[in-house]
Amino acid sequence: MSELTSWKEGAAKQAIVDFVTATTTAGGSGFVPPADRVATFDNDGTLWVEQPMPPQFDFVFRKWADEVKADPSLAARQPYKAIIEQDAAFFEGVATQDPQVVETLLEAFARSWSGSTPDEFEAQVHGWLRTIEQPKFGVPYVQLVYKPMLELLAHLQAHEFRVFVCSGGGRDFMRVFAEETWGIHKENVIGSAAGYEYKNGALVRTDEVLGGLALGPGKPEHIFAQTGRLPLFAGGNADVDIEMLETARFALLVNHDDDEREYAYTKAADRSLAKAKELGWTVVSMKEDWATVF
Amino acid sequence: MSELTSWKEGAAKQAIVDFVTATTTAGGSGFVPPADRVATFDNDGTLWVEQPMPPQFDFVFRKWADEVKADPSLAARQPYKAIIEQDAAFFEGVATQDPQVVETLLEAFARSWSGSTPDEFEAQVHGWLRTIEQPKFGVPYVQLVYKPMLELLAHLQAHEFRVFVCSGGGRDFMRVFAEETWGIHKENVIGSAAGYEYKNGALVRTDEVLGGLALGPGKPEHIFAQTGRLPLFAGGNADVDIEMLETARFALLVNHDDDEREYAYTKAADRSLAKAKELGWTVVSMKEDWATVF
Repeated sequence: MSELTSWKEGAAKQAIVDFVTATTTAGGSGFVPPADRVATFDNDGTLWVEQPMPPQFDFVFRKWADEVKADPSLAARQPYKAIIEQDAAFFEGVATQDPQVVETLLEAFARSWSGSTPDEFEAQVHGWLRTIEQPKFGVPYVQLVYKPMLELLAHLQAHEFRVFVCSGGGRDFMRVFAEETWGIHKENVIGSAAGYEYKNGALVRTDEVLGGLALGPGKPEHIFAQTGRLPLFAGGNADVDIEMLETARFALLVNHDDDEREYAYTKAADRSLAKAKELGWTVVSMKEDWATVF
Repeated sequence: MSELTSWKEGAAKQAIVDFVTATTTAGGSGFVPPADRVATFDNDGTLWVEQPMPPQFDFVFRKWADEVKADPSLAARQPYKAIIEQDAAFFEGVATQDPQVVETLLEAFARSWSGSTPDEFEAQVHGWLRTIEQPKFGVPYVQLVYKPMLELLAHLQAHEFRVFVCSGGGRDFMRVFAEETWGIHKENVIGSAAGYEYKNGALVRTDEVLGGLALGPGKPEHIFAQTGRLPLFAGGNADVDIEMLETARFALLVNHDDDEREYAYTKAADRSLAKAKELGWTVVSMKEDWATVF
């Protein structure tokens, strides 16, 4: 599947096709050797629905609700307190991926799974993926991956691009479904990452977050650490993607303007939309550019 | 090139071929799906000559000699002092990859390049690769990669294994020559890693070593962090490879027993040779199993 059939004819599709053609046509002035063809994509809001909040938080909050049931004294502590009280400012920070809120969460996240093995974590994520439905659409989150973006990943792969996902979300969380959902191997998933310790013949998770969050400047940092390169092609949808997008030769910004088929919002994306205008990035209107969303 | 033509017929070659055939024959009882076919190899002493010392140290010591010329007061400090005085115990620690010596070195290493960009570092390594000759063989180090091992990497790749190098040496150092030397992309190179900070539109090296050294237990830790898996096939040559090898389904240990064509030594490999016997790893005799070394 390397046809962009879910994309309407228009400026966005044309810009993508032109760039891929130029970089992969031998002898052309824009030719880029295959080794340098690295493409990176944000996940939440770029590859799948991130409303009402990035799906990983749903997974995490359910785990924490169970922890509070087991130990009610936790209810007085953050972030448990905010979750139980449905603190609006807190959830706003979650929805917009406010780095400070995300940091608090990821720290608690790291603590909650500290001591667990990769297999235990994978089993929990699998269970969540199978059973939890997104509230607006009533289907599991893995069914809410954007079809045009999957076609774009395949189009790039068919032209010898190596496609990576780079999200502020948890690396190990995304790796659980990367292969079946995106058709990319676990090693091509970059994200905020817990430490692991090898002891007595087994890997066990520590409470560290290694190399900081993969948000904002953390994205090019993590991408370079994982790949040894900066991207030739990058896709994002929010302010926290700006640094990744500005390092790429071709930058694509998904604009959520389709309240009917998905959601319409520019919160936490205003700066990136302004930057797109300033730097000539390709802005994708979900409403105008996509014939199909899912 | 997926033929093992530089390997003599014998138990080692047979064990490799049998394992690759069993894991990649659909319907067979040993079949492993392509997604899980990850192979990892140590570098120094496994893919290329590590005597009289791991090549990267030659690169680093030359840089430090230049630094001492520019600032003679450094000569009183470690590790400069040991290098200038040719301290035997220190060089012994380097040759055997003693984790404490390596840690001191990598810290100094990180400091020396702190503030540099990836392009600057890459240019320095390229210069070194082109001009410096290994003392016994009188050729640049990249010509001292073992031909049988290159054939093995190609054999695995031809059977849909994804091949990674995982060395205690510097990740960014190895990435400079990974593509032309091993035919593997930079993102498939795992090693001890400096931090990078993205600031004012550029990546700049920090003085941190992220995630610890890729030696001993650090190998499976770094491999899991990079790939989300532990290896199906692993190759090493020393005690610092034991933990990586014990996580693999097939473990190969290169035994340096060929003083004529390469070197003969078991220093820093005694424990791994004993472990190979205990766990049934495949030990490769450079002398008996390789028709050609380079």
